[in-house]
Amino acid sequence: MSKVRVAAFGISLDGYGAGPDQSLDHPMGRGGMALHQWVLPTRFFHAMQGKEGGTTGLDDDFARRGFDNVGAWILGRNMFGPVRGPWPDQSWKGWWGEEPPYHCPVFVLTHHERPPLEMKGGTIFHFVTDGIEAALARAQEAARGKDVRIGGGVATVRQYLEARLIDALHLAVAPVLLGGGENLFAGLDLPALGYRVTSHEASEAATHVIIERDG
Amino acid sequence: MSKVRVAAFGISLDGYGAGPDQSLDHPMGRGGMALHQWVLPTRFFHAMQGKEGGTTGLDDDFARRGFDNVGAWILGRNMFGPVRGPWPDQSWKGWWGEEPPYHCPVFVLTHHERPPLEMKGGTIFHFVTDGIEAALARAQEAARGKDVRIGGGVATVRQYLEARLIDALHLAVAPVLLGGGENLFAGLDLPALGYRVTSHEASEAATHVIIERDG
Repeated sequence: MSKVRVAAFGISLDGYGAGPDQSLDHPMGRGGMALHQWVLPTRFFHAMQGKEGGTTGLDDDFARRGFDNVGAWILGRNMFGPVRGPWPDQSWKGWWGEEPPYHCPVFVLTHHERPPLEMKGGTIFHFVTDGIEAALARAQEAARGKDVRIGGGVATVRQYLEARLIDALHLAVAPVLLGGGENLFAGLDLPALGYRVTSHEASEAATHVIIERDG
Repeated sequence: MSKVRVAAFGISLDGYGAGPDQSLDHPMGRGGMALHQWVLPTRFFHAMQGKEGGTTGLDDDFARRGFDNVGAWILGRNMFGPVRGPWPDQSWKGWWGEEPPYHCPVFVLTHHERPPLEMKGGTIFHFVTDGIEAALARAQEAARGKDVRIGGGVATVRQYLEARLIDALHLAVAPVLLGGGENLFAGLDLPALGYRVTSHEASEAATHVIIERDG
């Protein structure tokens, strides 16, 4: 069955999904790249960048599974880029170059309209201005029976969790402390929203945790 | 060298060291016992309760290490008992029965004076009314070169972290969400206080993380 899921979502031991002071030069915030160290050496990540080699095993398996059977993505505007307010022009096309790694429709949450943007390799960015539920409905239709992956960032994942619209999350808890930034858990009572941990498994680089919603 | 440390300190994935609604019947708060499931089956915990058997391996090793070379303990009043305000009498003697598992001097932080309380097996509870630094000084003297273990609860650990008085913490991160209660990390910038993760290792029941203070 088609699922709405979060995958390969890196957080720190103290719950931050991005460090403080995010900017064009530091899109993950200060120290935030440490959250993704588990994925960078994997064979899957190497292949995404057209490189040979890389590690296999638990981290690689989780990175790969994150892209399995995904038919559409949803991203917050912050994850799409650092531009704020109305789009000044069409020049910002995401962080990922001419051929982004999505290869399917991607719905970007924004308050400001913008025509769809077709990239190389099958990625089309659609800009959705009428809220998270409308974005999900459009993503589910576009996914044609496959899963919808909520890419992030933290604020977007939190909104979908609060609305109980996510079926499953895979978090990769990195063995680092960030001390500030965007916290995934703060003020969010996940058990009350129906979420519980259903499995966990650790590599040397991260503890991989699966959280699912009851019912 | 003598260290000030926290050990075998269970927290949830979302950072809570105790669940909501702590009470005499639920000293760990709602759901809080789930934080300690990793330790209950261990051989070390069995032996503490005079029982045979129990599991060996990573969880048992960490439980055991928590008591190695400890010469004195510090506990917050909440961890000593549910009594609030001035001590109505001397009848409350802790949660642990006539022979507590400490077997050394234990310094209890409180705003209300009370004479020392000598228990079976070498545990003496001292009640300290002049603050966390005074309690630590007394504990270090009593420990005679051994380590001082800060037992908890969360509020006590946070105060000692903020004062940069803890050298090392062993956290056991349980694969559960509590959604509320006493959060170890909220508003605490541990990297800014000089703390960083120096190792992590997972069993089926918990991810064991070591955090140490630089310098």
